[in-house]
Amino acid sequence: MTEPQPQLPPTTALVEDHALHATTDKWFEYVVKAHPHHTDYGGIVWHGAYVTWMEEARVECLQSIGINFTELVRLGCDLPVVELSMRYHRSLKMGQGAVVKTRMMEMKGVRIDWAYQIQNLDTNELCVSALVTLVAIDRDNGKILRRLPPAVQEALVKLSRP
Amino acid sequence: MTEPQPQLPPTTALVEDHALHATTDKWFEYVVKAHPHHTDYGGIVWHGAYVTWMEEARVECLQSIGINFTELVRLGCDLPVVELSMRYHRSLKMGQGAVVKTRMMEMKGVRIDWAYQIQNLDTNELCVSALVTLVAIDRDNGKILRRLPPAVQEALVKLSRP
Amino acid sequence: MTEPQPQLPPTTALVEDHALHATTDKWFEYVVKAHPHHTDYGGIVWHGAYVTWMEEARVECLQSIGINFTELVRLGCDLPVVELSMRYHRSLKMGQGAVVKTRMMEMKGVRIDWAYQIQNLDTNELCVSALVTLVAIDRDNGKILRRLPPAVQEALVKLSRP
Amino acid sequence: MTEPQPQLPPTTALVEDHALHATTDKWFEYVVKAHPHHTDYGGIVWHGAYVTWMEEARVECLQSIGINFTELVRLGCDLPVVELSMRYHRSLKMGQGAVVKTRMMEMKGVRIDWAYQIQNLDTNELCVSALVTLVAIDRDNGKILRRLPPAVQEALVKLSRP
Repeated sequence: MTEPQPQLPPTTALVEDHALHATTDKWFEYVVKAHPHHTDYGGIVWHGAYVTWMEEARVECLQSIGINFTELVRLGCDLPVVELSMRYHRSLKMGQGAVVKTRMMEMKGVRIDWAYQIQNLDTNELCVSALVTLVAIDRDNGKILRRLPPAVQEALVKLSRP
Repeated sequence: MTEPQPQLPPTTALVEDHALHATTDKWFEYVVKAHPHHTDYGGIVWHGAYVTWMEEARVECLQSIGINFTELVRLGCDLPVVELSMRYHRSLKMGQGAVVKTRMMEMKGVRIDWAYQIQNLDTNELCVSALVTLVAIDRDNGKILRRLPPAVQEALVKLSRP
Repeated sequence: MTEPQPQLPPTTALVEDHALHATTDKWFEYVVKAHPHHTDYGGIVWHGAYVTWMEEARVECLQSIGINFTELVRLGCDLPVVELSMRYHRSLKMGQGAVVKTRMMEMKGVRIDWAYQIQNLDTNELCVSALVTLVAIDRDNGKILRRLPPAVQEALVKLSRP
Repeated sequence: MTEPQPQLPPTTALVEDHALHATTDKWFEYVVKAHPHHTDYGGIVWHGAYVTWMEEARVECLQSIGINFTELVRLGCDLPVVELSMRYHRSLKMGQGAVVKTRMMEMKGVRIDWAYQIQNLDTNELCVSALVTLVAIDRDNGKILRRLPPAVQEALVKLSRP
């Protein structure tokens, strides 16, 4: 019998009923290496350092489908993280490489879920699995957008087609 | 009808059937301030920066009940994060203060769940809610301990008593 | 015979001939603690982590004399670091506290030099000594200001009086 | 007339009279990109973030000449930073790439000076110039080594030959 997981209070961004749904099975891969500044007293990557790698992989994944994140911000749209869940399966040691694999798991309206698998580059062992949810907001007023900017939506939908 | 949440694969640390359970309702409070280095291009605290504050609050909470984290590590026990979930409700701007509230939510065997509420110090608004799971490991071999070091267990059980 | 130190090329901000000079002998003190995320594989504070503490101490020192850094930025003035020199004398270990002592060493026009001494809180040993130079710029165009905003200059001059 | 620069107290590591001197004119190049987590409220790379890039470039430069930093640490030798000087000439904005150029400027005994030039990848403009001094220590006792491990010295001397 599984026990109920502790629940976090919902974010206001969680309720969405927009029609557009999209997903994709293809993983985008981004290679990183554990440098001294990533490590902690244990000689392994500090648990928060993975968050920087996940962000970098996401920005580069968007770039690979034609969405320049900086340009998006300049146009007044931001994509802040509203949810983040991580599981640490195995540690990564200083000097080891890893591949950060990410894919858009689901896009519902202005909410975009990204899945992550971070694997040791040498052993292929899974180090971290994670989920990140972004939501599109208007930078001028901080409010959640009713829909994604058309260019972003088109690029993401195109990404999700087989 | 709520949709099923995407699921992360379980960590090996998730299955535990040790007898000791403990919890506490008292929040430990740790005050922080958003400094320039915490911010990103949006002038708000970067989402990964909260992870540093949560760690600091946890270390200080342990200290407040007599568990010195550095000493624990020196004695050969480590308490790595094996799970982390965060929800970002409101942003925190540069110069704003926040209180990081944490409490031990559940201790089952060598697994310890911590709940977090990070509130804007001025408005009391909830900025971030989070859950962090630690597991006790033996630093020599990296294996999960069968039980917490007695001093740690006693301190945590004492903490959980009304 | 001492050897000449290697020289860095000058920043454009280095040449200044404004009339206002000010300095102060009083140290502002800011207490910090070495947490796990500050450490590296050696179990000591990673050399770059001190830069975050120095920034925090500087912001709090300015606040203590009535200059709110966030407000300054909102008004269109920024104080970026244009030079930074650090010497690492002794390491600081996880769990150890330190006091970051800072004082305005010299203010010439829109250039402000800050001196730092970071001492182990238990032993009083000097861990790091540093110099940081800020220069006031106009956020709108990124250009160096001809003079400090009057409120800032007055506060700094007042600070420098015996 | 140039004014005397403010002086930091010498580190104990500064006095060295070992015979071996070496230098090199060849720059090692390491490409980076300014991601959201590197930025601050100004939308530019936070001044401390460059320190992480400089470390990464140094580790990769050493690797390129056959010195594996992690292996060196495992063998009991560490190369902590004992001095760091940086000048910030131009800012780097989110989304911009940069090349971190580094070269061993001088090796005297167990002291190794590294020079840095960080240039905007698009414009070739110089963003940051820096000097970093490392010193070899024995990890067991934290003392400065009398000489570099032979493999390291040979690799560095080889690097410095035309």
